[in-house]
Amino acid sequence: MSWTTPTKAILLTATATGGTPLNAFDNALLEMGIGNVNLVRLSSVIPAHVEWLERLPEGIPVGMLLPTVYAEATATEAGAPVTAALGVGLRPDGAGGLIYEYSGPVTPAEAERTVRAMVEEGFARRGWALERFFAGVAHARVEDRPTAALAAVVMFPY
Amino acid sequence: MSWTTPTKAILLTATATGGTPLNAFDNALLEMGIGNVNLVRLSSVIPAHVEWLERLPEGIPVGMLLPTVYAEATATEAGAPVTAALGVGLRPDGAGGLIYEYSGPVTPAEAERTVRAMVEEGFARRGWALERFFAGVAHARVEDRPTAALAAVVMFPY
Amino acid sequence: MSWTTPTKAILLTATATGGTPLNAFDNALLEMGIGNVNLVRLSSVIPAHVEWLERLPEGIPVGMLLPTVYAEATATEAGAPVTAALGVGLRPDGAGGLIYEYSGPVTPAEAERTVRAMVEEGFARRGWALERFFAGVAHARVEDRPTAALAAVVMFPY
Repeated sequence: MSWTTPTKAILLTATATGGTPLNAFDNALLEMGIGNVNLVRLSSVIPAHVEWLERLPEGIPVGMLLPTVYAEATATEAGAPVTAALGVGLRPDGAGGLIYEYSGPVTPAEAERTVRAMVEEGFARRGWALERFFAGVAHARVEDRPTAALAAVVMFPY
Repeated sequence: MSWTTPTKAILLTATATGGTPLNAFDNALLEMGIGNVNLVRLSSVIPAHVEWLERLPEGIPVGMLLPTVYAEATATEAGAPVTAALGVGLRPDGAGGLIYEYSGPVTPAEAERTVRAMVEEGFARRGWALERFFAGVAHARVEDRPTAALAAVVMFPY
Repeated sequence: MSWTTPTKAILLTATATGGTPLNAFDNALLEMGIGNVNLVRLSSVIPAHVEWLERLPEGIPVGMLLPTVYAEATATEAGAPVTAALGVGLRPDGAGGLIYEYSGPVTPAEAERTVRAMVEEGFARRGWALERFFAGVAHARVEDRPTAALAAVVMFPY
């Protein structure tokens, strides 16, 4: 984590089931490819100023500490919706951006609307131009096992 | 963050409103001057052993990761009080100190009494002399929009 | 914290009382010997790949930032049980492992069963052999003051 500044980031989403809510969460991390690292959670409003990756870097050491913004929802009751979303807004010319999180028992479209509105408000408040918006939304409905929905932005220093 | 030890810190407070509780929280961070960095939350009991700054350092990079202790309260119901407080106790001779957090729907005076009592108990338990106590209390009452109160100690390595 | 990988870790447990739940938590940290450092909480599923220490290293600087996985429970109502548990599973040949957390108003045996089941599911899901399992369970029953139970794995870079 250091008092340093991330240079790269990736947005990932997954849903998964497990024997417990924590195992469901773990299984969602595994689906994303980040089940074997140490996540250090960052608070929810986060400037980007980073290169956005299409896929995870190779060779992340087992147990490496990675700063991560994430939204998560878990539920156990059959039929319950679980939705987790991150909205990412980017400024022109790679000048950075913002990430907002949302989770709740809503439809994916509602979750995306919510994170978009938060990004737009954050940009307006700062007087920033919003060049690009994208969202990661994970959504599932509980069947018979604990279920997790997870959206994460993982950051890298290299 | 590193396995290193902070050398400087600053206590900041703010209240703000926003279109959502998360935007209100974001706006309080902006009021404090730390809306464009990455906060890494530290657990609530934290020795200081640091120089206390009167204002934020110049030139904090956008997106820098900064370890931060914070107390926050958000509310949306009109008339609800939102209060967040940090109490800081310092030992003589710069030998460190403790930070305790509190948040809830109380008056600023109650919040300050609560964090002072926690600091005093933490010092007594350690057999430390309490040379100096100060508190940061953020307080507001919800009018018509989601409202956040935030007290933070941000730490720096330089 | 750095984007680095811990090399050592220790499992600690304690229960304590205090004038407030936060002071009880603080007092449990002091019992463990980590009351004067800065804990940075890691998300709950964490590969180990570390040397397990029998006792804390000497000379940890006051205020050092230490990445920590912890489970905690606090309660204030007389008679209430407080139980916090971590289960650690290790692979053969020091190839790493997993940590799962649980806390709730249960017996120590129930808490240990729960973290064991989570570890076993995490290992099965990854196709890993479980060479060794151990758990840290902190348990108390509230008498007349706020009471905390805390189980922690603290990580070190050296």
